[in-house]
Amino acid sequence: MKLALQDDMAITNNDVRQLDRNYVFHSWSMQGNLNPLVIAGAQGCELWDYEGNSWLDFSSQLVNVNLGYQHPRVLAAMKAQIDELVTIAPATANLTRGEAARRIIELAPAGFSKVFFTNAGADANENAIRMARLYTGRDKVLSAYRSYHGNTGSAIAATGDWRRVPNEFSRGHVHFFNPYLYRSEFSASNEQEECARALAHLRRIIECEGPGAIAAILLESIPGTAGILVPPAGYMQGVRALADEFGIILILDEVMAGFGRTGSWFAFEQDGIVPDLITFAKGVNAGYVPAGGVIISEPIAHYFDDHFFAGGLTYSGHPLAMAAIVATLDAMKEEKVVENAAYIGDNVLRPGLETLAAKHPLIGEVRGRGVFQAMELVTNSQTKTPVGAAEMASIKFALTEAGLLSFVVENRIHVVPPCTISAEQVEKGLAIFDSVLSRFGGLVR
Amino acid sequence: MKLALQDDMAITNNDVRQLDRNYVFHSWSMQGNLNPLVIAGAQGCELWDYEGNSWLDFSSQLVNVNLGYQHPRVLAAMKAQIDELVTIAPATANLTRGEAARRIIELAPAGFSKVFFTNAGADANENAIRMARLYTGRDKVLSAYRSYHGNTGSAIAATGDWRRVPNEFSRGHVHFFNPYLYRSEFSASNEQEECARALAHLRRIIECEGPGAIAAILLESIPGTAGILVPPAGYMQGVRALADEFGIILILDEVMAGFGRTGSWFAFEQDGIVPDLITFAKGVNAGYVPAGGVIISEPIAHYFDDHFFAGGLTYSGHPLAMAAIVATLDAMKEEKVVENAAYIGDNVLRPGLETLAAKHPLIGEVRGRGVFQAMELVTNSQTKTPVGAAEMASIKFALTEAGLLSFVVENRIHVVPPCTISAEQVEKGLAIFDSVLSRFGGLVR
Ligand SMILES: Cc1ncc(COP(=O)(O)O)c(C=O)c1O
Ligand SMILES: Cc1ncc(COP(=O)(O)O)c(C=O)c1O
Repeated sequence: MKLALQDDMAITNNDVRQLDRNYVFHSWSMQGNLNPLVIAGAQGCELWDYEGNSWLDFSSQLVNVNLGYQHPRVLAAMKAQIDELVTIAPATANLTRGEAARRIIELAPAGFSKVFFTNAGADANENAIRMARLYTGRDKVLSAYRSYHGNTGSAIAATGDWRRVPNEFSRGHVHFFNPYLYRSEFSASNEQEECARALAHLRRIIECEGPGAIAAILLESIPGTAGILVPPAGYMQGVRALADEFGIILILDEVMAGFGRTGSWFAFEQDGIVPDLITFAKGVNAGYVPAGGVIISEPIAHYFDDHFFAGGLTYSGHPLAMAAIVATLDAMKEEKVVENAAYIGDNVLRPGLETLAAKHPLIGEVRGRGVFQAMELVTNSQTKTPVGAAEMASIKFALTEAGLLSFVVENRIHVVPPCTISAEQVEKGLAIFDSVLSRFGGLVR
Repeated sequence: MKLALQDDMAITNNDVRQLDRNYVFHSWSMQGNLNPLVIAGAQGCELWDYEGNSWLDFSSQLVNVNLGYQHPRVLAAMKAQIDELVTIAPATANLTRGEAARRIIELAPAGFSKVFFTNAGADANENAIRMARLYTGRDKVLSAYRSYHGNTGSAIAATGDWRRVPNEFSRGHVHFFNPYLYRSEFSASNEQEECARALAHLRRIIECEGPGAIAAILLESIPGTAGILVPPAGYMQGVRALADEFGIILILDEVMAGFGRTGSWFAFEQDGIVPDLITFAKGVNAGYVPAGGVIISEPIAHYFDDHFFAGGLTYSGHPLAMAAIVATLDAMKEEKVVENAAYIGDNVLRPGLETLAAKHPLIGEVRGRGVFQAMELVTNSQTKTPVGAAEMASIKFALTEAGLLSFVVENRIHVVPPCTISAEQVEKGLAIFDSVLSRFGGLVR
């Protein structure tokens, strides 16, 4: 589609940036001094602008383009769906939606039976919480301080009609500390201590909040934006055991960690546990069309056979989003994308980051699984003082200038390329890290 | 895309329904006894299944397919965007996103300057509420009992990281009665009385809740799901005046009423007022790709130039959704779709419904604007006793059997065809109403 601003001239980066600054309001920012990167196109793990600049992607945008950009099979499936039926309401039965749900259930552990589709990650969590509350008849939801679950929080309470009433729960959201040994909240000095103390803390929170009042524990399988905080061995089993002991629903948020990112289909598989509800979005169709959802275990799905589910949204199970899911999952299976993420993570990316860490004292810790890795940048490895915001912005800018799209959060670089990335591309990105970090070595004191 | 369940057999309705019942969890229902309609394809204002049955659409699905099904221009634009760049993060500058935002601003009244894009209607309202709260520093949101604003309400409160904190408002949602003369909450017997009393009631609510605590009044320009409750002349001006008097932000929800539905681009235009924030979704791209957003007036947009906006979502301004917006709005303009909705509403649909009402005592009231009309079914025109749920289900079933997709809410039939519908198609649908309602005449006592 040619949307050229000036019909007779080539599009420039500046045209696009100016149009954006004139009309588009941006997330999570002050609007005054934004200078957004202009992207004209992308393929695989590379992106480019209108003026010949290109980037290797170590961000997967918002950690969603797990399959890489412009995968031909997914694009073709989307075009076919566009020709077949581009939109239809959730109350109908739709073939593509059924096929998408079936594929997701086949990937989920045994005991999961139905999928409720949403538009994204936030409303996936909204609906998982709703299911847990309706199913248990309890109100409170425990979740971690170091977490991100999405951005909604008012529309149903603002609603005036009857659909508000069954959703009018109290603001029963209680937060606890999740394990993070590098900056332990529990004065722990090793993994076992961190695990044991974090579980004891969670038990105390449950006891103090009243187990009979707690509907759900909502946890990212691996907290992502919070720093790719791989839980210590035993922690997830401990959480599962606490949930069982107190009849609490365990919701695992796999929005960022799921669909290949960690080298398995779901991140929790590597912890040997099974949750009651799984939320997903992002990687399920690489973000080609907005989509998310809840994977529902049999007892909860069954409960709603004869209990009313008081939730819904106009675009639940949107056929175009579903076509992208079907094709993405098929492509990931046939092209062994999850295996690639595991292989690259274990054999190329992680060892490469460890090598960098050994060389650059700025890197305080490397952690992660698969292509879900983080480097924590500190000015002093003893005090673990985080590199400041201005310096991190300079590092990000230098990486971009050097041709690497990075994902920087606070004092961390999250290393989250598409799951399809090759060893050569990883080496190229690591070399850019190496040269840029060398220039910032002076930050260490 | 051929997703055939059995490769060597034709797809049947039952295959698709069975797949759906096996794997798909449905909105707003008990899952046990669902029998969803199977739709295989659609074009213009017609849909069909896999077995030769077809329907004329008087529902626009969830009142979103304003442009009709499978509009070739929009499909072509979407395919072009798929080839160009199917997905990109909101933090970048994207040409199609800029073009979509520019078109929306050009349609909005003077004084609106930026668009924040979301995935749908619920998160549009979430973010408008967030803007109003951050801008005013106040907490409470007033909205109407007879309203629907979407289905989210927990994800940001569940979030543990810093993004929760600026969003951790109280549950300050207060509801008031909006005007509805046919079933007046104010014992009013005519429009002027209903208007004056509803405004006096709103003023009392504002006074009693404390004007200094109220961030926003959130109102559907014409409450849709609640019954297509066209406000009496003067009401919207009165609300605007109250908002001004007390420094309250007026958010108009145009998710269902906007983008042609009422015969104007925005429903509020016909009331001669201008809100501070406008929320939209549905009709903006006919639901071809999930999308919604907030249109922001200059003072509020400007405020966030140097104040942090604490909101965001992965798919804000998704390029594919944006391409569908650009093409939908261009097609609507060039093909005079809004003019058609006004013409059909005034000259064919509304007069036709009035004629039906004169003939069928079951129809207690007809109301609406453009192709946004409702018939209220009552067993007695004096007592206005609503037709019961089981009978309404039978009526809906009979309409479907007769080839008309209808939109039934409580005791009402909402008559909401695509804005592209022709006079002939409307006549055909009215004839089906006529014959089906004749069969239910016995309900009247
Ligand atoms: C773990 C997790 N959950 C939920 C969300 C929210 O997803 P969305 O932005 O699609 O609403 C995110 C987004 O980054 C996430 O990382
Ligand atoms: C007026 C209004 N606002 C908001 C919404 C919510 O939109 P969505 O279902 O896209 O979240 C709806 C949906 O019907 C609506 O009619």
